[in-house]
Amino acid sequence: MKKAYLIAAGMLEDVDFLESVLRKKEENELLVSVDAGLFVLHRLGIKPNIVLGDFDSVEAEMLRIYEQDPDVLVERHPPEKDASDLELALALCVKTGYRQIYIFGALGARMDHSLSNIYLCCHYIKKGISLYLLDMYNKIYVLKEGRSLYRKEQFGTYVSFYPMQGVVEDFSISGVKYPLSGVRLDKYEQPSFTLSNEILEEKADISFSSGILLVVESRDRRL
Amino acid sequence: MKKAYLIAAGMLEDVDFLESVLRKKEENELLVSVDAGLFVLHRLGIKPNIVLGDFDSVEAEMLRIYEQDPDVLVERHPPEKDASDLELALALCVKTGYRQIYIFGALGARMDHSLSNIYLCCHYIKKGISLYLLDMYNKIYVLKEGRSLYRKEQFGTYVSFYPMQGVVEDFSISGVKYPLSGVRLDKYEQPSFTLSNEILEEKADISFSSGILLVVESRDRRL
Repeated sequence: MKKAYLIAAGMLEDVDFLESVLRKKEENELLVSVDAGLFVLHRLGIKPNIVLGDFDSVEAEMLRIYEQDPDVLVERHPPEKDASDLELALALCVKTGYRQIYIFGALGARMDHSLSNIYLCCHYIKKGISLYLLDMYNKIYVLKEGRSLYRKEQFGTYVSFYPMQGVVEDFSISGVKYPLSGVRLDKYEQPSFTLSNEILEEKADISFSSGILLVVESRDRRL
Repeated sequence: MKKAYLIAAGMLEDVDFLESVLRKKEENELLVSVDAGLFVLHRLGIKPNIVLGDFDSVEAEMLRIYEQDPDVLVERHPPEKDASDLELALALCVKTGYRQIYIFGALGARMDHSLSNIYLCCHYIKKGISLYLLDMYNKIYVLKEGRSLYRKEQFGTYVSFYPMQGVVEDFSISGVKYPLSGVRLDKYEQPSFTLSNEILEEKADISFSSGILLVVESRDRRL
């Protein structure tokens, strides 16, 4: 499955983390800068395939470098529009055949932006598109059916689960510190019930019979 | 309505912001430190009424100061328990008659903790208790019926809305940059539909006929 990487304009303090991921990106994977996300890539000297945005906060001079580069597609959108630049970038990835999309800069200081982007994951999974929201402390995605999470592929220390769009029924998880079998997840009734689990064995097997499951793999902040 | 302030152990970089709020706290309002939240209050020299936690990350020496203070109630809980220290602190506030609870340190680097705390707001509003989650960039709370938001009381620049526990029907808002009348809010269908509105007039009137509405008042991060 071909991967695409979107670099959005949210809080991107963790440039080292972004760089470590992008240096492992393969040749046939797509890299898209979304609006001011271009700054970060420019600073890292990593060339995107597509540069998209309304560019109201991007210097004309920097933008010109990419407009003159025959390898780069520049997509300019008007500032006032119904969809966000990130949504337009996602639509472009989907149209060009990408089904696994890793998004940096989608989790930031403003919780309203972070929440909208989490709900975007739920919206896209129904079309068969998996979005992964990444920052230094979190890897966030949704599942519409059970799967195994492998410890060696895990991001961070903890794994937490939340039912989205109603409840998740018959949730089971094994191979973890707090195994569960056939429980109903209702985040409003028990807001921290499936918070901070830890994968102890080679893999954790997850199953559930209905609903959409939000997965947050996370690590603590070093103080 | 008597207010309580809970200082939890999440990311509390914005100590200046916390201090500015607590210096305005009135005498009859309650201040509770939740576990390592005590560090921050201790550093600020602001004495809590109640010190609660399992204290596994609090120095015994610091804790002793509060244990020996006749004005401070110290509540120690075992580290392994069903509810989080924050939930235990909330239960204590509610039992002692507080219905408006301001929580600092509940929004942090780990999105799983932030999400659980947002769902906690939804859980408590059903009991008639309003929780406000605060950090430098966000003030988050839920409503179960319409009200007016006054521009002079607003936190930050933007106000965003999300339906919780299903959809919100007949949502209307006036006095803002993007007014709406009688629309259905479905965050999974339109994840950024009610993101980043701005109050333009003296007040914004909000109404809706069903559901629970999450409100995020926010400001951009200064870069």
